[in-house]
Amino acid sequence: MKIKRKDILGIEDLAKDEIELILSTAESFKEVSEREIKKVPTLRGRTIINLFYEASTRTRTSFEIAAKRMSADAVNISVSSSSVVKGETLRDTAKNLEAMNPDCIVIRHFSSGAPHILSKLVKCPVINAGDGTHEHPSQALLDMLTVKEKFGRIEGLKVAIIGDILHSRVARSNIYGFTKLGAEVRVAGLPTMMPYGIENMGCRVFYNMEDAIKDADVIMMLRIQLERQNAGLFPTVREYSRLFGLDAKKLERAKKDVVILHPGPVNRGIEISSDVADGKYSLILDQVKNGVAVRMALFYLLLGGSRE
Amino acid sequence: MKIKRKDILGIEDLAKDEIELILSTAESFKEVSEREIKKVPTLRGRTIINLFYEASTRTRTSFEIAAKRMSADAVNISVSSSSVVKGETLRDTAKNLEAMNPDCIVIRHFSSGAPHILSKLVKCPVINAGDGTHEHPSQALLDMLTVKEKFGRIEGLKVAIIGDILHSRVARSNIYGFTKLGAEVRVAGLPTMMPYGIENMGCRVFYNMEDAIKDADVIMMLRIQLERQNAGLFPTVREYSRLFGLDAKKLERAKKDVVILHPGPVNRGIEISSDVADGKYSLILDQVKNGVAVRMALFYLLLGGSRE
Amino acid sequence: MKIKRKDILGIEDLAKDEIELILSTAESFKEVSEREIKKVPTLRGRTIINLFYEASTRTRTSFEIAAKRMSADAVNISVSSSSVVKGETLRDTAKNLEAMNPDCIVIRHFSSGAPHILSKLVKCPVINAGDGTHEHPSQALLDMLTVKEKFGRIEGLKVAIIGDILHSRVARSNIYGFTKLGAEVRVAGLPTMMPYGIENMGCRVFYNMEDAIKDADVIMMLRIQLERQNAGLFPTVREYSRLFGLDAKKLERAKKDVVILHPGPVNRGIEISSDVADGKYSLILDQVKNGVAVRMALFYLLLGGSRE
Repeated sequence: MKIKRKDILGIEDLAKDEIELILSTAESFKEVSEREIKKVPTLRGRTIINLFYEASTRTRTSFEIAAKRMSADAVNISVSSSSVVKGETLRDTAKNLEAMNPDCIVIRHFSSGAPHILSKLVKCPVINAGDGTHEHPSQALLDMLTVKEKFGRIEGLKVAIIGDILHSRVARSNIYGFTKLGAEVRVAGLPTMMPYGIENMGCRVFYNMEDAIKDADVIMMLRIQLERQNAGLFPTVREYSRLFGLDAKKLERAKKDVVILHPGPVNRGIEISSDVADGKYSLILDQVKNGVAVRMALFYLLLGGSRE
Repeated sequence: MKIKRKDILGIEDLAKDEIELILSTAESFKEVSEREIKKVPTLRGRTIINLFYEASTRTRTSFEIAAKRMSADAVNISVSSSSVVKGETLRDTAKNLEAMNPDCIVIRHFSSGAPHILSKLVKCPVINAGDGTHEHPSQALLDMLTVKEKFGRIEGLKVAIIGDILHSRVARSNIYGFTKLGAEVRVAGLPTMMPYGIENMGCRVFYNMEDAIKDADVIMMLRIQLERQNAGLFPTVREYSRLFGLDAKKLERAKKDVVILHPGPVNRGIEISSDVADGKYSLILDQVKNGVAVRMALFYLLLGGSRE
Repeated sequence: MKIKRKDILGIEDLAKDEIELILSTAESFKEVSEREIKKVPTLRGRTIINLFYEASTRTRTSFEIAAKRMSADAVNISVSSSSVVKGETLRDTAKNLEAMNPDCIVIRHFSSGAPHILSKLVKCPVINAGDGTHEHPSQALLDMLTVKEKFGRIEGLKVAIIGDILHSRVARSNIYGFTKLGAEVRVAGLPTMMPYGIENMGCRVFYNMEDAIKDADVIMMLRIQLERQNAGLFPTVREYSRLFGLDAKKLERAKKDVVILHPGPVNRGIEISSDVADGKYSLILDQVKNGVAVRMALFYLLLGGSRE
């Protein structure tokens, strides 16, 4: 089985049935990580390059483990932004890596659109592991898989995404994804955190968190970038937390079978209280587990290995 | 064969027969590293994570090579202490890694006790690769293996550990280990370097190095942390070296078949002179060689692979 | 097949027939990287250590991919120069790594001669991946392979190397290599960039680029180290570029079938214009592709694996 596209650059590009194919493939890979010998020979002898222009222990580790469980050779390249300044262009890096015959390049970049540039420059599949404030498709796919496992469906669900929507590639990818699969997506945050024209993405906008989470099936809390406070995005952490942080009190307004997602790493006590992050509604760790399976599925579908 | 415990957190926890099991298993793995094809299939498809909160080329490399020679997939995560400050809690890191189904986590941490916290949070085995000033069990095991190879036994030997005992996790683990196996352990250093109540650990305390090494079978020199001079631990490097550095002259007082250990990296000319570090009594490189075998044994005993 | 030497430290040491053996072996490995399963079992169970004292994404990645495609276990160690200052000596690092039974150590070091010191200290093969301003033999070998593929021979060709010859390990290795294989080597650059006595290496010296590239078959542009401007090596980047940068206008003076090499990373618009770097005469990406094959060949010839 192979998906009929070269790359996974964003959820915006994907059709509903492509998303569904990825999710069902990921489901079938979950059991590999439960085995004693956590390895399938599917992608033996393939070279997968993890090209990270931003530090990310979590996402890089997930992709690396996924590659190794598929028996691929994983090569990590981490480029600090400081070295990019005096270093070579993305174009030259791309053409150079291409010359070494990789089978897939996973790229995280601080600039929105970098994976798209890379994709045009190399013949092999490119997976966007997060680009600037644009998209983070594998995160949205693992979020959708987590919700689908819980409810058996996504269509008709109400999904509330809370926080700094404007700067969040996680929010953007999830809005595309959940909307395509028929969910109602709501976004809530301070006015400074709301992208202009966000309604056109098909979601309902709230400036009050309680209204947004009322009768929601899924609450997705975003990580607040504390360094953005100085940029005037929000007045104080305490104020932000009071208005848009999720705690037990706010959770009382939610449905009895609501589930809570967070892409991590969690700022405990800021956007989410510790009791809620660790509580019975939280699916945060299911998300991480599903992350490995989704990435195995992406490698499988893009590289077209023969399944054993 | 499998050891009946989940983790290796410290030598303090280990019974005498557990230590002996580890040492004899390590001995049997030594020949793997002498082969042309340095690899056994024992832990194929297992995921071993090296989670290092302190830089350590030597120890990380030894664990990584050990994992690969067991055919496991090794994933390195290095976390700088600066990123911990603004980053997630150890608890969150632990739960996240756990969700990716590792088979073993090797952790080095600047805080004493961190591996114990990790161990309670994850189902998989945890190996302490050094925590703060607490323990460094794989180092003590390789030290014991090195001494046992040399003398054929540990019981009844006199082991003198020289240096900053207070801040040394290597000293602490070795005091536990050699004492359990029936050796007499002596410690020597400046009064500022001696933990309060150290006698209760079963060792004899000396403030004069010559007395400590007289009729000792093993002299274990500790690395002095030069940055501790400013903290008032010792007046000058020269003074420390004169009193507690091992050189040819001091060595004249020792037994004719004494052996010398050092955990590395060596400050040549400070705690040990170059001629002694490279001389005929030194087992420093045997220690390093045994380090790979000990770590292979730990992986084998904790992960319970089938031996081939 | 095995080359009759322990190490590859520089092209200066290699005989003509050794270079030819490496090139023909590399040619035979090129097709491995074109396969779907890019892997031969030749060096399974061997441990190859990449010991890098200078950051180098490109060269380290090439060696790592080469090792993995030979089925060896690759272990990366990167040592920042700051940690060397307070750290252990190269001798101690060497002896320690040796004790872990590696099958090959690839070393890049900021000091000329470091690989030679390492080589004397360890029994396993050592490959110099660039030392100070001395040699970079695998680069010269891939350059020679690239030229040989293009012209079918090296003997009798005219090779012009342009730039900071004095500080370039790439230039030095290539002067040795191309001269040994019977090419005429010309060097051109500012007087400050020309080593004293360079004529004794068997090459012709030019201080005018146009004269050097006239009727040359190969033009090899060197990367200019921009940080050397402050050291008085050249007055301004613009001035340097005007005199010794390769652009379409200067290229008019060259032969119709000239080829252009550059070791990368390219300073576009400085030592080479973008249209020339990406133009029809440029073999820059062939060089990168051949780099993986040359490194596979070096591992094969030095480690003596059985070919399958």
